[in-house]
Amino acid sequence: MKDWKRVQWTVDLNSDLGESFGNYVMGQDEAILHHVTSANIACGFHGGDPNVMRQTVRMAAERGVALGAHPGLPDLLGFGRRYMAVEPEDVFNMTVYQVGALLSFATLEGKRLQHVKPHGALYNMAGKEPAVAEAIAEAVAAVDKELILFGLAGSQLVSAGEKAGLQVAREVFADRTVQPDGSLTPRTQPGAYIEDPEQAVHRVVRMVKEGKVTAVDGTEVDLQADTVCVHGDDPQALAFAKGLRKGLEEQGIRVRRIGES
Amino acid sequence: MKDWKRVQWTVDLNSDLGESFGNYVMGQDEAILHHVTSANIACGFHGGDPNVMRQTVRMAAERGVALGAHPGLPDLLGFGRRYMAVEPEDVFNMTVYQVGALLSFATLEGKRLQHVKPHGALYNMAGKEPAVAEAIAEAVAAVDKELILFGLAGSQLVSAGEKAGLQVAREVFADRTVQPDGSLTPRTQPGAYIEDPEQAVHRVVRMVKEGKVTAVDGTEVDLQADTVCVHGDDPQALAFAKGLRKGLEEQGIRVRRIGES
Amino acid sequence: MKDWKRVQWTVDLNSDLGESFGNYVMGQDEAILHHVTSANIACGFHGGDPNVMRQTVRMAAERGVALGAHPGLPDLLGFGRRYMAVEPEDVFNMTVYQVGALLSFATLEGKRLQHVKPHGALYNMAGKEPAVAEAIAEAVAAVDKELILFGLAGSQLVSAGEKAGLQVAREVFADRTVQPDGSLTPRTQPGAYIEDPEQAVHRVVRMVKEGKVTAVDGTEVDLQADTVCVHGDDPQALAFAKGLRKGLEEQGIRVRRIGES
Amino acid sequence: MKDWKRVQWTVDLNSDLGESFGNYVMGQDEAILHHVTSANIACGFHGGDPNVMRQTVRMAAERGVALGAHPGLPDLLGFGRRYMAVEPEDVFNMTVYQVGALLSFATLEGKRLQHVKPHGALYNMAGKEPAVAEAIAEAVAAVDKELILFGLAGSQLVSAGEKAGLQVAREVFADRTVQPDGSLTPRTQPGAYIEDPEQAVHRVVRMVKEGKVTAVDGTEVDLQADTVCVHGDDPQALAFAKGLRKGLEEQGIRVRRIGES
Repeated sequence: MKDWKRVQWTVDLNSDLGESFGNYVMGQDEAILHHVTSANIACGFHGGDPNVMRQTVRMAAERGVALGAHPGLPDLLGFGRRYMAVEPEDVFNMTVYQVGALLSFATLEGKRLQHVKPHGALYNMAGKEPAVAEAIAEAVAAVDKELILFGLAGSQLVSAGEKAGLQVAREVFADRTVQPDGSLTPRTQPGAYIEDPEQAVHRVVRMVKEGKVTAVDGTEVDLQADTVCVHGDDPQALAFAKGLRKGLEEQGIRVRRIGES
Repeated sequence: MKDWKRVQWTVDLNSDLGESFGNYVMGQDEAILHHVTSANIACGFHGGDPNVMRQTVRMAAERGVALGAHPGLPDLLGFGRRYMAVEPEDVFNMTVYQVGALLSFATLEGKRLQHVKPHGALYNMAGKEPAVAEAIAEAVAAVDKELILFGLAGSQLVSAGEKAGLQVAREVFADRTVQPDGSLTPRTQPGAYIEDPEQAVHRVVRMVKEGKVTAVDGTEVDLQADTVCVHGDDPQALAFAKGLRKGLEEQGIRVRRIGES
Repeated sequence: MKDWKRVQWTVDLNSDLGESFGNYVMGQDEAILHHVTSANIACGFHGGDPNVMRQTVRMAAERGVALGAHPGLPDLLGFGRRYMAVEPEDVFNMTVYQVGALLSFATLEGKRLQHVKPHGALYNMAGKEPAVAEAIAEAVAAVDKELILFGLAGSQLVSAGEKAGLQVAREVFADRTVQPDGSLTPRTQPGAYIEDPEQAVHRVVRMVKEGKVTAVDGTEVDLQADTVCVHGDDPQALAFAKGLRKGLEEQGIRVRRIGES
Repeated sequence: MKDWKRVQWTVDLNSDLGESFGNYVMGQDEAILHHVTSANIACGFHGGDPNVMRQTVRMAAERGVALGAHPGLPDLLGFGRRYMAVEPEDVFNMTVYQVGALLSFATLEGKRLQHVKPHGALYNMAGKEPAVAEAIAEAVAAVDKELILFGLAGSQLVSAGEKAGLQVAREVFADRTVQPDGSLTPRTQPGAYIEDPEQAVHRVVRMVKEGKVTAVDGTEVDLQADTVCVHGDDPQALAFAKGLRKGLEEQGIRVRRIGES
């Protein structure tokens, strides 16, 4: 795996975008695009539609934000957040399909697709179930070997991506705490979230520079961060993203897209 | 526009395939693939799903049948056959999306995508409404300039494809009669169908060799055939397709995929 | 047809509600429910889902707002606003289905369903095409003869409702101008909207008391208003609704649900 | 719970019907209706659409077959057979919605709805997860207390139905073997199916007359059969259904709909 921080400390900031659908508006895509370096763009299964995809790809391209496909489960009603008992073959094919659709919009703008990051329940399943992780990694590799796969740092998806010969970006969440095994503290548990931007910056800086983070029980966990997920759903989220970026840069960390060497 | 019949008389036979969805089976794809040279493969909007697309692309590729995308309106319930008041921008983007998705499956098999043929109501709208025709042609050209656009011979879609700088294949229907203006006799009118395979062969031979066909009222119409659409829904349709191919070859017409020079 | 204004001048105010879908939020339902007397609740085809329907029915029931089904075309992506070439049989059955689904949620709350008002393109088609209007009216009558049908004042839907033996409420739009033939000025034309709340009140008062309104060209048009549609999408729309209700009441018009005699 | 076999031995035969969708045809509904006494009719989520529902309700009503709603998960692509992580509230509301929609078509034909039987993964989840079972039972009871709930004999759904004050019909499968705990042998295991119609008749007769069946390991299991599910997908299935009915009647068991006393 390529070492993204070869020259100096760098990190990528990514956000889930293009999740509107028809007349339904979701997120503040235009605003968040000022703060991130990689866009994970919904592909029409859990959110997004062809018009939204085109507009989001164009907006991201205009701002120099790297383009990524964000494939999800075929469950618009559940926004792709509900576990579904899909077969590895289903996962492989739904990934090929969605990545291909987004790739086509990138082509329109004369841009390359940088990465693929699965969405919601598919991301979670890929983190824990090797068969799902491998289906995604193999689908991505089959479509384009140069694509970078985003997966939760320390998860099955990262391993599967490496096994498939892909460049992998280890993802961490700026606003979430972790368990002693490096997994995210479930949203339903107390202490799952980090609301203080300074604390978030501090944690991300350690993950970038030292590859370490402190779990909820005080354990030191090895967790390397290549890319950090930030949300842009509401004004607070935007302020958080902006503060995080500023804080990282003040600590000498260059924020730039993962594919930029 | 390239003259497909430069060396000798040739014609392409195409069929709409991959229209099954989940547990719902439609068509006799495997059987019809023995008789045609180009496959128009549904892309998940009016029919088809990622699993079906992969399997259909693979089957066609294995038999040397050329791959085409068959994008439709987002109306699974109506099988893409109902007119919908979509904007040119919607048409452009739904075409980019669906062609991209299918392209991705062609890539998996190490094959190029040969052509794009819109489905059902979208095909009919593109034949008559210049704005729809242009949206499709421009979308296809934007995704890949080398793609061949299939459109009803004499229709707006053929003109729009040429205007967009695409290679265009003029399509005729072996089992349908035409009006004095070259348009298809509506299915609801008496005399819309040609059920005698010999008569169908005779008509197609004339369209290929002379660029002429006799309309329902006896008028001679200029209609050049580069590709002929055949159906494969039932045993009779299969026999018709087989008979058509045999009849054409007996008349000295080579049946081969459109992209083959 | 029952004369809703028998005793004194009354009018109903209705609004389209329950159009959220899964994680996608639309409208300000809770706020608008304070100003209207009848709720047109989406039934899952153009918007709405079972969870949203239940919550909307409950909120409306708690506030004493009358419940109505708001069936639409099966086009979530287009929010039911795109014309589709559906057959009268399709319209009949999709109306039966959607009204039945909403009826079931009304039953849960121990309430009756008061009315049915088709949505978007289906409403417009029903206003002009007798076959569509009759399909809707007959479907409503077949499900429950006591249901009141809402249709644009002067439209085919009103006639079809009367023919089917239903009580009909003639609907007008507070913020839209009309053509000399009583139809709404298309949204795309200049002068389509009335933005001054006072002018809107004045027009509605005339339609309620005199059954007359002035068209865009100055012509006096006969147009009787039993129910007035108000929007609740944004703060201005809410203020407009509130102002309209206050204005009507100041002019001696009782605002109450259509089914209340 | 009512004892359906009060007067003499009786059993109901049910089948899943109306699962076609748009242009996609599934099953041999017309043929199977000659052999069964209760129809479980798909409601548009896993299969079925408004046109199909109307036609199926009408065909069943004409043949005196009792009408039942067959609600499923919102997963047309997976035909409602894939587990999805739905909340009890989702299950409650999707049941209310689908039962209401079908009820409306029964009303059209002047018929009552007899029963509700969940489909596929929802049926399996309801058999094992008390929260899902209760959500379904409460939804059915809330729509109409007179509805009969069909659940796998010995399952959580039967208990939940009784708890909700509903009449419950204990369902068995004529062509499936059972485990020592009374659950169905998973389809993927050897010995899951019973292919010999005579053996199937023998087993059902015992379940009806003695409330007993022999499990795969030879254990005697208490399993009372009020209704037997038969399939009608292919010619063999039809022959099996016909043979089962004949065999039961020869053994002195009256085959009639569950709601008939």
